[in-house]
Amino acid sequence: MNFASDNTGPALPAVMQAMIDANAGYSPSYGEDALMDEVRDRLRTLFEAPQASVYLVATGTAANALALATLSQPWQTVFCTPLAHIHTDECNAPEFFTGGAKLSLVGQADKMTPDALRAAIGAWPAGDVHNPQHGPVALTQATERGRIYTCAEIAALCQIARDHGLPTYMDGARFANAVAALGCTPAEMTWKAGIDAVSMGGTKNGCLGVEAVIFFNPENAWEFELRRKRSAHLFSKHRYLSAQMLGYLRDNLWLDTAQTANARAARLAAGLRDVSGAEIVFDREVNMIFATLPRATHQRLRAAGAAYALYDGPLDNGPADEPLMMRLVCDWSITEADISRFLDIAHGA
Amino acid sequence: MNFASDNTGPALPAVMQAMIDANAGYSPSYGEDALMDEVRDRLRTLFEAPQASVYLVATGTAANALALATLSQPWQTVFCTPLAHIHTDECNAPEFFTGGAKLSLVGQADKMTPDALRAAIGAWPAGDVHNPQHGPVALTQATERGRIYTCAEIAALCQIARDHGLPTYMDGARFANAVAALGCTPAEMTWKAGIDAVSMGGTKNGCLGVEAVIFFNPENAWEFELRRKRSAHLFSKHRYLSAQMLGYLRDNLWLDTAQTANARAARLAAGLRDVSGAEIVFDREVNMIFATLPRATHQRLRAAGAAYALYDGPLDNGPADEPLMMRLVCDWSITEADISRFLDIAHGA
Amino acid sequence: MNFASDNTGPALPAVMQAMIDANAGYSPSYGEDALMDEVRDRLRTLFEAPQASVYLVATGTAANALALATLSQPWQTVFCTPLAHIHTDECNAPEFFTGGAKLSLVGQADKMTPDALRAAIGAWPAGDVHNPQHGPVALTQATERGRIYTCAEIAALCQIARDHGLPTYMDGARFANAVAALGCTPAEMTWKAGIDAVSMGGTKNGCLGVEAVIFFNPENAWEFELRRKRSAHLFSKHRYLSAQMLGYLRDNLWLDTAQTANARAARLAAGLRDVSGAEIVFDREVNMIFATLPRATHQRLRAAGAAYALYDGPLDNGPADEPLMMRLVCDWSITEADISRFLDIAHGA
Amino acid sequence: MNFASDNTGPALPAVMQAMIDANAGYSPSYGEDALMDEVRDRLRTLFEAPQASVYLVATGTAANALALATLSQPWQTVFCTPLAHIHTDECNAPEFFTGGAKLSLVGQADKMTPDALRAAIGAWPAGDVHNPQHGPVALTQATERGRIYTCAEIAALCQIARDHGLPTYMDGARFANAVAALGCTPAEMTWKAGIDAVSMGGTKNGCLGVEAVIFFNPENAWEFELRRKRSAHLFSKHRYLSAQMLGYLRDNLWLDTAQTANARAARLAAGLRDVSGAEIVFDREVNMIFATLPRATHQRLRAAGAAYALYDGPLDNGPADEPLMMRLVCDWSITEADISRFLDIAHGA
Repeated sequence: MNFASDNTGPALPAVMQAMIDANAGYSPSYGEDALMDEVRDRLRTLFEAPQASVYLVATGTAANALALATLSQPWQTVFCTPLAHIHTDECNAPEFFTGGAKLSLVGQADKMTPDALRAAIGAWPAGDVHNPQHGPVALTQATERGRIYTCAEIAALCQIARDHGLPTYMDGARFANAVAALGCTPAEMTWKAGIDAVSMGGTKNGCLGVEAVIFFNPENAWEFELRRKRSAHLFSKHRYLSAQMLGYLRDNLWLDTAQTANARAARLAAGLRDVSGAEIVFDREVNMIFATLPRATHQRLRAAGAAYALYDGPLDNGPADEPLMMRLVCDWSITEADISRFLDIAHGA
Repeated sequence: MNFASDNTGPALPAVMQAMIDANAGYSPSYGEDALMDEVRDRLRTLFEAPQASVYLVATGTAANALALATLSQPWQTVFCTPLAHIHTDECNAPEFFTGGAKLSLVGQADKMTPDALRAAIGAWPAGDVHNPQHGPVALTQATERGRIYTCAEIAALCQIARDHGLPTYMDGARFANAVAALGCTPAEMTWKAGIDAVSMGGTKNGCLGVEAVIFFNPENAWEFELRRKRSAHLFSKHRYLSAQMLGYLRDNLWLDTAQTANARAARLAAGLRDVSGAEIVFDREVNMIFATLPRATHQRLRAAGAAYALYDGPLDNGPADEPLMMRLVCDWSITEADISRFLDIAHGA
Repeated sequence: MNFASDNTGPALPAVMQAMIDANAGYSPSYGEDALMDEVRDRLRTLFEAPQASVYLVATGTAANALALATLSQPWQTVFCTPLAHIHTDECNAPEFFTGGAKLSLVGQADKMTPDALRAAIGAWPAGDVHNPQHGPVALTQATERGRIYTCAEIAALCQIARDHGLPTYMDGARFANAVAALGCTPAEMTWKAGIDAVSMGGTKNGCLGVEAVIFFNPENAWEFELRRKRSAHLFSKHRYLSAQMLGYLRDNLWLDTAQTANARAARLAAGLRDVSGAEIVFDREVNMIFATLPRATHQRLRAAGAAYALYDGPLDNGPADEPLMMRLVCDWSITEADISRFLDIAHGA
Repeated sequence: MNFASDNTGPALPAVMQAMIDANAGYSPSYGEDALMDEVRDRLRTLFEAPQASVYLVATGTAANALALATLSQPWQTVFCTPLAHIHTDECNAPEFFTGGAKLSLVGQADKMTPDALRAAIGAWPAGDVHNPQHGPVALTQATERGRIYTCAEIAALCQIARDHGLPTYMDGARFANAVAALGCTPAEMTWKAGIDAVSMGGTKNGCLGVEAVIFFNPENAWEFELRRKRSAHLFSKHRYLSAQMLGYLRDNLWLDTAQTANARAARLAAGLRDVSGAEIVFDREVNMIFATLPRATHQRLRAAGAAYALYDGPLDNGPADEPLMMRLVCDWSITEADISRFLDIAHGA
């Protein structure tokens, strides 16, 4: 019953097998491995983008910070929501990698709206040397609250960026979950909607630690490679990043896995609705649920060993029926039995 | 016959098995995994340093740049040799991670001498606001030319650093090979000789991608953790770094592997001496050989598929007997048969 | 009738005379000049802080960015208001000088409240490696909207900072105007209220370009000197900074000048209240007035050559009685006649 | 008898008068002043470069670091001599402003040779992601040892840079002294020889603190303006920089002043040759002399109050006839009488 995050579970067997298979013989280092050629081909095909530049790094923060640095200048400001991972959970990595760019916060919520984006851009006069200059617009898909932008919503935001001459970046740490939920293609959710660069996360969806970074405009390629190297994110034994990504891409595993995770979360959310005192905060869209449960219910669940993030507290002290906010995340390894047991305990069974 | 580098071969079976074993169940993320506790204990024991701070990162450049940044200030200068990996092969990573510190080059060779270090430090007056301030002294052990510092040599350099109040760092990308060659303990080669921080490389000695960074003074711990996080080198699924390092540390595997690699290089060097026109540049000390061979010999070797770094050229055009410089590196996977075959071809057999 | 800013007028005659007097004979460079010794003594006396470190720089942004960088770490966040000059008007200078620290915005207004500061600090959990770490609290006195913190208000904010172990910085670009308005001493408004470092602006109050930066804790001294040098803000012919500051400090000129400017603004604000359709937004406290006037009144004023910042628009097109926001700043050189003429035109005379 | 530096003397009367003249009435801030328009026009005319971008900053280090940052990328290396001011005397300012670029040292001397430059560029393979990438070539004219490059020498170095696609920068802290010595035009010494950007120093040649930075390719303009602003080098009361530069440019004052200073140094050097035990190290070319004198002579000079940099020591202790190295710099204010007196004392009169 581990719903703590999608980074606490094991890697997919097929991904691990790909690692094992890759561990034979000699291979050129630093991204010159043949497996990477296959990764590149597969991702270009998957994204219907034969000219795209494709890179692998090992962490989501590396993907975000390197891509944003490549798309921006130190005197610019990135536009993102106040809940964006790049703002709240990367210990100033974007500021470090960009050489001191600012993050301007758009709106109040996890999901950016066109009005909020227009207001945030408009708050800094264009062409005035005194204030930060306009830089990239960064979206998280799915968002940090487990919500998704439709392709039309993405397109609307990208159009605003384009109107101001600004590049766009999609933090796709849960890219697969969003594609699975939308039922669209990767191309539709990215460059066809106006996205310039995207990370396609593997780590949270069953890999050990690998993220693809894709630039649809190959002009950015060499600069990205230099930034990756000087930030120590170019792996010498790169084949082990390639192998993970290959195992993840083959046989549609990336999408199947996300569909499974989303489905598990759907079942969990459905079950939660029947739990006494439960309140679902955002309608579940991918593999994450934000909900409140009464303190007493949390106490039962935690006592039974259920792991998840609890945002309110204290757990031990206070009215039994006071609602406390939680986050439940389903990764691929969560079983139906886990969910049933969780719900049983929640019901007080 | 792949002598290209110690990063082109496969990982050790026991390391890969440790990865597989780690891939079960749930584990706290971001370095809170139980495997890391064991890694920490083992490294503290191995280094006879119960208070040491121990961290894992995935690349050697990350280890170097993060450790140096932790030990320095942006207005300081690091002292290293002109052949130091941190100077020549990291695309300014030390400058990036330190926020703009300078590297001052000590002497002309890969191995730093006390006189050269004293001269380099003395070249910048102390306490003068105009020039770079004195910062850490960085040694590579084994050096980029495959040579080693004795413990006494390390102690002499560290004493000079200490006399100027400067911290010392050892880039131990080939740490195990040096320990194996010296027959000393890790403690003797580091803190007992005056080293403040060291990286103990796993990647070049049979891991997939993992380096330990050890600070003997735990004061540096929290700053290092913050620097690791904001440079995107803190892994969410950290257990896969821990598992590699555990597999590497168990049963003395790290040292056995290095001894094997060194022995292979010794045999190769011995054989080379008999090859007509061969000239060994530095006496082999670890698993690396710098030598010249006549152009014609190179042509035969390359035609037969031997892989190694060739520093002079062109290969195809010029006098058959002109000596061209090469580097041969033996990792754990090189076999006796590989060596015999290489020598046979070199002999023209 | 130039109310555009307090940086558009001429320098005080006594400041210029001090420059002329300083321009004779030889003087040690880079801050070793005898005039600087006198500046240091005078500022220590003025601030009742005999141990304080005292430095001069030529721009307010240099003072702010260097002081904040000295008080913070790159992985921290500075707390300031959304209207803070360091956030809106320095083109990311704080991010640059700090090496990538973040600015966290406190509240919605130009004046920070204790509740808003507590909330902003609380929004980032302490000791969590993932989010930005708590860094300095930065106040602007007088604020960017011409308001002032009382000494008790400053003390309350500094107490919150102290409770979290955070240093405090006061951007005193209009330091003298605030002291004049409060009728307190420099010490009361700074270290006696808990401020750790302050800039005391000269540029906006009659100098050519000089700001004092004062650290009440001399521990910060050497780091500041190194930061000043490597950011190219250490002047070789430093005597011309010293001379300005000396001219400014002698005979209480700094305070007299600010009192004059404040008094002019008071008279202008009083007169504005009688202007038809005028609305004063913030009660005037120093030498700055934010007010709205009907479009037609603006048209008359601008046509007559009055210079000031107009925040709404367009000037030329729209209802004659629509209120448009303006800012009026009085520096020392504004005359009673300027004010009378401005008011006459505003009245339609 | 102050030969300590060209930054210890007073400013030229005409420059100070221009400051006084500028101190009247209101003027737009931040470089929008009318005086700056005149400066721009005059410098474009002087350099025969009607499209050039022209900026003013207050320190030579700001000019150098901002120009180099504008011409480079953080993953590149600047090529300069080991005696370059940017390497030895700016406390890592170039590394800071460039965001972590490296300085690669060319040759062993203060004057770069084509062979040394070719070797230094060739030491870093082009297009290899592992090493620093090729960046700008930086010359100091006159050099830190008071020597000058002929226009042909500059052209030869610039041609090598151009062959590698690298931009070129001239640190012209003593630009006027070099032009005076060469008898060439500013255009001949810069863009006609292939220089892309140059600083034309005012500070060392009679101004209070002002340097012009000129980009012959106006593409660099906006980036430079943003860099200047975010590094806090854009002055609000910019007219006082403009005024200095105007006073300096009018009536050929910049060149006359340099000719005077050079002539004084020539007379001093000529006189020194007759001093017993004197040895001139570099043939004097501008306003700086490097020479050795016997210890006893130094003792006499210092006792008489002569100020100059002494590189060897100790002054007080050692053989009376031991030669000790000194540097003598003549600024515009040195008189014939100063020189005569200095020589008299040196002679033991």
